[in-house]
Amino acid sequence: MERTGPFWDVVAGKAPLPAAAKTLGWELIAVSPEEGTIEVAFAATEAFVNPAGVIQGGFLAAMLDDTLGPALVAGLNPGDFAPTTDLHVQFLRSARPGRLVGRGRVVRRGRDVGFLAGELLDEDGAIVAVATATVQIRRQMLQRHQLSDGAGEAR
Amino acid sequence: MERTGPFWDVVAGKAPLPAAAKTLGWELIAVSPEEGTIEVAFAATEAFVNPAGVIQGGFLAAMLDDTLGPALVAGLNPGDFAPTTDLHVQFLRSARPGRLVGRGRVVRRGRDVGFLAGELLDEDGAIVAVATATVQIRRQMLQRHQLSDGAGEAR
Repeated sequence: MERTGPFWDVVAGKAPLPAAAKTLGWELIAVSPEEGTIEVAFAATEAFVNPAGVIQGGFLAAMLDDTLGPALVAGLNPGDFAPTTDLHVQFLRSARPGRLVGRGRVVRRGRDVGFLAGELLDEDGAIVAVATATVQIRRQMLQRHQLSDGAGEAR
Repeated sequence: MERTGPFWDVVAGKAPLPAAAKTLGWELIAVSPEEGTIEVAFAATEAFVNPAGVIQGGFLAAMLDDTLGPALVAGLNPGDFAPTTDLHVQFLRSARPGRLVGRGRVVRRGRDVGFLAGELLDEDGAIVAVATATVQIRRQMLQRHQLSDGAGEAR
């Protein structure tokens, strides 16, 4: 499989991390585009806590979105992208600020659609949240974004 | 309805905004605990964009979590809290950095569980994403958090 394109440029340090990923402290641990699996880490900071003193569920959802999506994006052709249409998250237990690990996998990849699943684990290895997502596979979307600054077709 | 407790302390400026809300630029527009409705605004910044140049879906999910939850929390007794167990988001269109408005409502509130729904709108009033959530209603959770620093029962 060809390991070129924006995902691999970031992995190789040739392109900056996307802002959303940087905000979440995204870090690649392992990826297999052939198997459609990925393992990433996040830095859950004090900036993400809710009134109960734990990481707000929405930020866990953001981390899961940035786990599941890359599991598929790593295997796309350069310039292709996979915007999420549906994200369903179940919050199993609370997470404190610290390092969280995301594991994502492609359950099925069709021509224009992908079905993804994964989970987020805390430092003890306990599952904090699980998610499924549906994505649309859009060809040459990132080139269009670069040409047009993303207007119109961006999602 | 009694308008006391952490939510109302924040609204009155007597308590700081929770960190997660601050990170999302959360701002109250209108709230009716009697009707179980809320309208809030968020500041979607460049820190939330994905490789396609639009707000990463996960951050939209975080905003929706911080719209739906407060719709119910505003009507709870002081110290009670409502951690989310399920969040399902559909992403209808892309959102650029800017101001987004969240509208949340309590669809049904039982003794121990709440069913919530809402949507996120862009500056043109177009619906960017819709969500449903299920929350657990926990009595005196915030006091326990303050006493114990949130250990154990925090979610």
